[in-house]
Amino acid sequence: MLAVYPKVVIVGAGFGGLAAAKRLANRKVEVTLVDRRNHHLFQPLLYQVATAALSPADIAAPIRSILSYARNIRVLLDEVVRVDRDRKTVTLASGRILDFDKLIIATGSSHSYFGRDQWAAFAPGLKSIEDATTIRRNVLLALERAESETDPDRRHALLTFVVIGGGPTGVEMAGAIAELARRSVSKDFRNITPACSRVILVEAGPRLLPSFPPALSAKAEEMLRGLGVHVRTGTPVTGLGYGHVQTSDVWISAKTIVWAAGVEASAAADWLGAEQDRAGRALVTQGLTIKGSDDIFVIGDTASARGANGQPLPAIAPVAKQQGAYAADRILGRARKPFAYRDFGNLATIGRSRAVIDWGRIQLSGFIAWLVWSAAHVWFLIGFRSRLSVMTTWLWSYLTYRRSARLIIGTDGNSASTIAPRRKAA
Amino acid sequence: MLAVYPKVVIVGAGFGGLAAAKRLANRKVEVTLVDRRNHHLFQPLLYQVATAALSPADIAAPIRSILSYARNIRVLLDEVVRVDRDRKTVTLASGRILDFDKLIIATGSSHSYFGRDQWAAFAPGLKSIEDATTIRRNVLLALERAESETDPDRRHALLTFVVIGGGPTGVEMAGAIAELARRSVSKDFRNITPACSRVILVEAGPRLLPSFPPALSAKAEEMLRGLGVHVRTGTPVTGLGYGHVQTSDVWISAKTIVWAAGVEASAAADWLGAEQDRAGRALVTQGLTIKGSDDIFVIGDTASARGANGQPLPAIAPVAKQQGAYAADRILGRARKPFAYRDFGNLATIGRSRAVIDWGRIQLSGFIAWLVWSAAHVWFLIGFRSRLSVMTTWLWSYLTYRRSARLIIGTDGNSASTIAPRRKAA
Repeated sequence: MLAVYPKVVIVGAGFGGLAAAKRLANRKVEVTLVDRRNHHLFQPLLYQVATAALSPADIAAPIRSILSYARNIRVLLDEVVRVDRDRKTVTLASGRILDFDKLIIATGSSHSYFGRDQWAAFAPGLKSIEDATTIRRNVLLALERAESETDPDRRHALLTFVVIGGGPTGVEMAGAIAELARRSVSKDFRNITPACSRVILVEAGPRLLPSFPPALSAKAEEMLRGLGVHVRTGTPVTGLGYGHVQTSDVWISAKTIVWAAGVEASAAADWLGAEQDRAGRALVTQGLTIKGSDDIFVIGDTASARGANGQPLPAIAPVAKQQGAYAADRILGRARKPFAYRDFGNLATIGRSRAVIDWGRIQLSGFIAWLVWSAAHVWFLIGFRSRLSVMTTWLWSYLTYRRSARLIIGTDGNSASTIAPRRKAA
Repeated sequence: MLAVYPKVVIVGAGFGGLAAAKRLANRKVEVTLVDRRNHHLFQPLLYQVATAALSPADIAAPIRSILSYARNIRVLLDEVVRVDRDRKTVTLASGRILDFDKLIIATGSSHSYFGRDQWAAFAPGLKSIEDATTIRRNVLLALERAESETDPDRRHALLTFVVIGGGPTGVEMAGAIAELARRSVSKDFRNITPACSRVILVEAGPRLLPSFPPALSAKAEEMLRGLGVHVRTGTPVTGLGYGHVQTSDVWISAKTIVWAAGVEASAAADWLGAEQDRAGRALVTQGLTIKGSDDIFVIGDTASARGANGQPLPAIAPVAKQQGAYAADRILGRARKPFAYRDFGNLATIGRSRAVIDWGRIQLSGFIAWLVWSAAHVWFLIGFRSRLSVMTTWLWSYLTYRRSARLIIGTDGNSASTIAPRRKAA
């Protein structure tokens, strides 16, 4: 690496940051990629970890390992605490300060409880591997406790699962929980009938999958009902607490509640002192830079960009990936036109063999759509080994209806799960 | 299930408890199997999770699912707090009380720090999946931190890994850490040379693998040295603290320390008020019951039993499995002779392609021994999907020298790894 090459700092190794890094790999730039985690996560399949169909390692890969071929990229496990636009430096939590000529911010988003952060304790959301294993533990523990519960009301609450939010994540979670709780484990229990468990999907808006055409929303709802999911649209959640969800008209007693209703951008717009929209996303130019700083790009869920039709671009992986590649091309001097998003369609899956796909004029639903969905997701999963492992795992669970990753791991505040030490030290 | 069948309670679903349950499956007994965890763990491969070669789900399977074919067995996720020998009841942490006609205690063992429990914080041991992911996180984080550390002494300490205890677990851990830290990740780092990291195996006794013949101990030591492990036998640990290990003659600065030096039996002998040996194991008769209670069996690591030669039986999986099957046969009225352990040999592996095997007269070491070791372990792994997945994972990592499960997951007290929430709720 020669010091004369421009210094590029990329913050975040999600879809956007990684796409930028790959485009800059082995080019005449000196790249530093900073992420809080050592792994890139294939978030579209995270709900499958939460519902015990896949293991964490199936959908995550070490960032270093993905980029080990790129001799001009160094990867730092660290966190950004400050960006100085004038001095062009990034300060990290470890105290280290990085100079940059070009900066790409791709720090993604986290759950939003719309100002009611106290709800997070009762209804975990789904963003990280820890979130996924927490939800997996909650669902599996609820079934275990129902098996030994003798009080019918408490058993009913243990066997009720509520998913809040009817977007793609909520729809996928509800379908997968229904299959896990109602079918996969059905032969394993003696006292409870898993098929009697209830999965309720609550959505404030008038229909599921609002980013899809109404016909596909209706299809998705129909398919979910076929899996035994109770769909309640037009039902805003007004209260949430330990073991219950309150909506405008009803009080649901449920021990397992999953939050899939909202996200907010990371704090990058605050760091930059940049203009932001209501969701906290930094407003960017058509070149994906912030106003007044041509050298600072903001991409992915952290950015508020608009498509050719003037509509805001959705917070999905293809947008982040295309923006990452575009920002890298700008830095390499290869892109001069404004960023234009190429829409390859919109997919969501419902359970183990159904999906909906919106390709504009062509709309698919059912088994064929699921095959397309599977092929697309396995294809885009990073790393050959993950592809192979995910395919064999899916094939196996498809053939047997079993879930291979049904492990309850980690501590749980509500159970006496620690063993007493044998004897105290003298 | 008819109430007239004898009630059998099995506590613990490790190798011993599970072997007993399988032998009693679909027989004329009413079995309740209690375990604190929802999964059976294939402990002999746990070190491979700790060293990022396998995922937790590869070596663990839900107990319910293993036994779902057995209509006379119910599985409870619970913990024993008391056993009443006179009333023949077992009290669980949930408050539930189980009556039994026959009781099998198979609760295993945990780490022993020989009375210095404060060492546990600095040198985690390896018994559960959480232990394994903790060690994996420590090893991978040490490499990450070394990459961004500029002080040479601190970097040296980050790249020093100490394994305490030269039994099979310590030997396997040391070999696997050496391969992970010195070879697998070598291309992924820019500032450090992983091959310069040091792995030190410390053993108080005069040789490694004391349960093997001296010739194989020497072979194992030679193979470990070939992997770059520094072997220090005859070196008792006298002190342990954050970032350092003290032995009689030297002070080792190391950020990653793993404890593989000792185990102690679970508290079962205390519950039973039974006679116990120095390691806390319940003394059992030749029929594996405790003195004075023909209906209470103690097996596996919790029991102190002797072989035909008068020597204590080792705390290994084959002993537990044979004892479990024997206890079940006694309960079914099929076994009348005293328990006799059939020794099929003793195996330990060193790194990715070497092992030692002791079959009495025949002793093997090197690659052929490793092939036998692999075949035996994959064969005994529970569940077809695990076998397939472990085999493909091994084959893949054997061919590429890569580790597929290199994820740093969970919180870590020493790093600023939590993201600040974007903005506080009003």
